[in-house]
Amino acid sequence: MKFHGYFRSSAAYRCRIAFNLKGLSPDFASVHLRRGGGEQKSEVYRTLNPQGLVPALEVDGLVLTQSLAIIEWLDETWAEPPLLPADKDLRARVRAFAQAIACDIHPLQNLRVLAYLKEELGHGQDVADAWCRRWIGDGLAACEALLAREETQGDFCFGDAPGLADICLVPQMFSAIRFGVNISNLPRLGAILAACEALPAFADARPDRQPDAEA
Amino acid sequence: MKFHGYFRSSAAYRCRIAFNLKGLSPDFASVHLRRGGGEQKSEVYRTLNPQGLVPALEVDGLVLTQSLAIIEWLDETWAEPPLLPADKDLRARVRAFAQAIACDIHPLQNLRVLAYLKEELGHGQDVADAWCRRWIGDGLAACEALLAREETQGDFCFGDAPGLADICLVPQMFSAIRFGVNISNLPRLGAILAACEALPAFADARPDRQPDAEA
Repeated sequence: MKFHGYFRSSAAYRCRIAFNLKGLSPDFASVHLRRGGGEQKSEVYRTLNPQGLVPALEVDGLVLTQSLAIIEWLDETWAEPPLLPADKDLRARVRAFAQAIACDIHPLQNLRVLAYLKEELGHGQDVADAWCRRWIGDGLAACEALLAREETQGDFCFGDAPGLADICLVPQMFSAIRFGVNISNLPRLGAILAACEALPAFADARPDRQPDAEA
Repeated sequence: MKFHGYFRSSAAYRCRIAFNLKGLSPDFASVHLRRGGGEQKSEVYRTLNPQGLVPALEVDGLVLTQSLAIIEWLDETWAEPPLLPADKDLRARVRAFAQAIACDIHPLQNLRVLAYLKEELGHGQDVADAWCRRWIGDGLAACEALLAREETQGDFCFGDAPGLADICLVPQMFSAIRFGVNISNLPRLGAILAACEALPAFADARPDRQPDAEA
């Protein structure tokens, strides 16, 4: 199994947490998103992922893309510990929470989008940063509200064990902090972040602990 | 079962196709995205979806959000016809295709994002339109490539029956046409669109056939 990722990519970070929770150690291939105009745009990488985005997972001739699809596949291939709940109603709410991040926050702060704002539309870093803070701030506030209405309030997003929702939340919280979003008004999400960070599966997946990490 | 949507929302359109394929007819509540500053932002609607986005599905006290989560829930609740393949490797590729649209294309052309470009950053409609064409064009080209590498080339995205991938593709193709994206270089996606449009489940879900449709 070979995982193509980049230390700072939120989507790769999600997959790393999932690998760790499942006790898997795929080989790692670094795809440097900034070097040489972006290795993810190269012809070679696009044979793995025509989207020109990380991550991609190669396993026995199969090539998988999209972090959420990869994580569900891992969960269907290695059952323990489960990353999605057995109850279908709860599972739908977990998926919705994950998608609130993976669809409605993260893609808006993607490198290619920020590059368009700066290179094509001529905006400065300040405008790009404010853009990110807007979508991350609004999006995480909605995530806090989504969890507030759950009957069960455990240590993690949906209960007493980490799963897909936490896997998406933690990289997004890291990104929030990096872009200077005020997360002090998100007490539940902050507590979940702390609970996750106390687990090696999450801590070892941090961007600064990856072989391709840069300062 | 009560569905909260808007005729022009791609995410609501996906759900409508899924309801039709499953033979379901939920009650419909219109959430007008432009009237009164956007009904989706109202306090009442946010009790259903704190994200302030359509769609939302109410069913027996359960409130579901995020179109892909809703569609997977429908598929897990009403088995026939299946919207996801039984094979887990193929299922992962179908989900990845759906997410390539739902994560990496559609959120970038969302109303709130275009409003930010125009109202906060002062750009005109021409810049907003070019922005949409860029992400839709690049994204659909990647979707065409994702399908080209599949061994099975049926009438639909992944085989001889429509499913989650087609449910995501058709609204995105409609949107591509609306924004003036050149889709003539996407022959496979064009053929799939035609195959889907020939089915009442897809045709009846079109924006212009909804009770809240406007010219």
